[in-house]
Amino acid sequence: MARSAHQRLVCAVMAGGSGTRFWPLSRKGEPKQLLRFFGDSTLLRATVDRIAPICPPERRLVITAAHLVDAVRDVLPELPSAHVIGEPAPRNTAPCMAVAAMVAQSLDPDAILVLLPADHWVADANAFQRALLRAAEAADDGQIVTLGVVPTQPETGYGYIEQDGPALDGVARVARFVEKPDLARAVQFLQGGQHLWNAGVFVVRADRARQAIDRYVPDIGKALAELRNHAVGGEAWHAVLKVAFPHCPNVSIDYGVMEHETEIAVVRLDAGWSDVGTWHSILGLRPAGAANFTYGPVLTIDSDQCVVISKGPFVAAVGLHNVAVVATDDATLVLPLDRSQDVRQVVAEVTARGRADLL
Amino acid sequence: MARSAHQRLVCAVMAGGSGTRFWPLSRKGEPKQLLRFFGDSTLLRATVDRIAPICPPERRLVITAAHLVDAVRDVLPELPSAHVIGEPAPRNTAPCMAVAAMVAQSLDPDAILVLLPADHWVADANAFQRALLRAAEAADDGQIVTLGVVPTQPETGYGYIEQDGPALDGVARVARFVEKPDLARAVQFLQGGQHLWNAGVFVVRADRARQAIDRYVPDIGKALAELRNHAVGGEAWHAVLKVAFPHCPNVSIDYGVMEHETEIAVVRLDAGWSDVGTWHSILGLRPAGAANFTYGPVLTIDSDQCVVISKGPFVAAVGLHNVAVVATDDATLVLPLDRSQDVRQVVAEVTARGRADLL
Repeated sequence: MARSAHQRLVCAVMAGGSGTRFWPLSRKGEPKQLLRFFGDSTLLRATVDRIAPICPPERRLVITAAHLVDAVRDVLPELPSAHVIGEPAPRNTAPCMAVAAMVAQSLDPDAILVLLPADHWVADANAFQRALLRAAEAADDGQIVTLGVVPTQPETGYGYIEQDGPALDGVARVARFVEKPDLARAVQFLQGGQHLWNAGVFVVRADRARQAIDRYVPDIGKALAELRNHAVGGEAWHAVLKVAFPHCPNVSIDYGVMEHETEIAVVRLDAGWSDVGTWHSILGLRPAGAANFTYGPVLTIDSDQCVVISKGPFVAAVGLHNVAVVATDDATLVLPLDRSQDVRQVVAEVTARGRADLL
Repeated sequence: MARSAHQRLVCAVMAGGSGTRFWPLSRKGEPKQLLRFFGDSTLLRATVDRIAPICPPERRLVITAAHLVDAVRDVLPELPSAHVIGEPAPRNTAPCMAVAAMVAQSLDPDAILVLLPADHWVADANAFQRALLRAAEAADDGQIVTLGVVPTQPETGYGYIEQDGPALDGVARVARFVEKPDLARAVQFLQGGQHLWNAGVFVVRADRARQAIDRYVPDIGKALAELRNHAVGGEAWHAVLKVAFPHCPNVSIDYGVMEHETEIAVVRLDAGWSDVGTWHSILGLRPAGAANFTYGPVLTIDSDQCVVISKGPFVAAVGLHNVAVVATDDATLVLPLDRSQDVRQVVAEVTARGRADLL
């Protein structure tokens, strides 16, 4: 009897991010996906726990930056050690898809690959699992299936997926991908009901993933050609990967593959979702009814809509509104949440002052 | 030939304060007068340097809390060790005046005592010295002379001295002391020109100081009676002080003495003065033209009228207006400067949470 799409799932978590948008909490050695400020879990751990009920450990992969491999293994001790794969250089998500598809096929020639970011937040794990299984079924006929989050506000910080016609049983064809809109368009999108937030999740048969990569970004296949001569996941394979991977072009799945692919579907996801992109987005993750998002030894007095986080020092925030106060042992950031983007400016200035030790 | 008032000066710095208005910078073991955030000097050191040109080390005293004696000696190594006197319990300023007068007379039977707070700020040291010398001359006829700061704004945070008639050669009689006024009265005071800020400085002949204390607060004399049987400043004297001092009533010079005394004068001081009472007052001490008061490894971007101080961690303040950000290795405070008074509330809450280790 043919195995179901569910039984053929291989989940690959993309955990290569190394951003500084959460400085001073996020550091080179401790990027966003490894931060702990939701209870005692990391976003990576939460991401894996979210797919755990539909995908056993031996069918899970994590693809991360080489210098984070040990940290990832510490967070996910249940994963086979060879299933944590280090990228020796950042090359965005398309090369990651190629490697994941290769490994998935070695585990299961009929694998249906789920590629998902390590650092997103989802309120309703069950709904997320149902969406992935629906996507896997849809992917079985050869489409690349994305998850599209039903918008809850006119968000200008996300890319959108425009669906083509009505969804059938939760699945719709994709008309096009749309860049981050201005507020007026975002309002239209929200009202129109045909636009969904691009959650950066892709579900695709492993063989189709490789085919698409070879077709649209052939340089990736060329760079990784030597890998075919070695047992996937073995020592030699890892050694070759280390040398070959940096030769891949730096390109995302969205630009490298999806822009060209025509067989694309989207599964609508209505589960409470955030890309956890900025300090401002953290505010949205506070418990219902809470005035502020707080973590660690912090005290808030007469403050509301603030993000107050400490990884060490005691922090007292008095009389603040819509401000982030983030303290670690060696650095503290205070900025209005509507200026969350300016963390970038701070990081640039910290670098300019020769304090790269703080990054 | 009779010695001048100047030659007979003995300056006693009152350094007993242990407030928490500058938490988290000020701590039990490091109160305001011992903080460093003006260059590398402490307010205590600056206070002593300010009177140094008119009063040699052997005629200077510091009266402080017993647990701060060593720290004070470290800051003022030029002082004879016996000239740093520790109060075994806080009893406000009147008992301090009694002890200072006693020690001053032992150094010079004709001493004119200058009692001054350790933790104020003065821009123009020369003007301050001139005012003290003028006060010393005026005190020579038996008056208690105060310094009254010419107001520069309708300040509601200070006590006032109302002068009685015009000043003659900078000295006026005192009509009365006035409690902190509301804003309307403070505006009247500023416009009227007869009200001066009470700078907490007293200049008085040592014999007259003892007389006034004995007359108006006789319990102090009783508590300290046993001291008369020992050589002032000697080991036995210090031992007796330790036992006797806590028996003194807890009373200020203003309430215990000045309210009752009739022979009072005030010398007008126009020198740039602050009692450095709150984080808000620190803002007023920033260099001319500076947008913010900053100290330590701090970065300000698009911020103005802020106080940003770090004793350790790197602090980045972005897009803030009129906010204090104060960071130490174990505690950080963020509050709008117009809520500077609420540091008290923070300290109470820190105590309530069992974190007295942070105070």
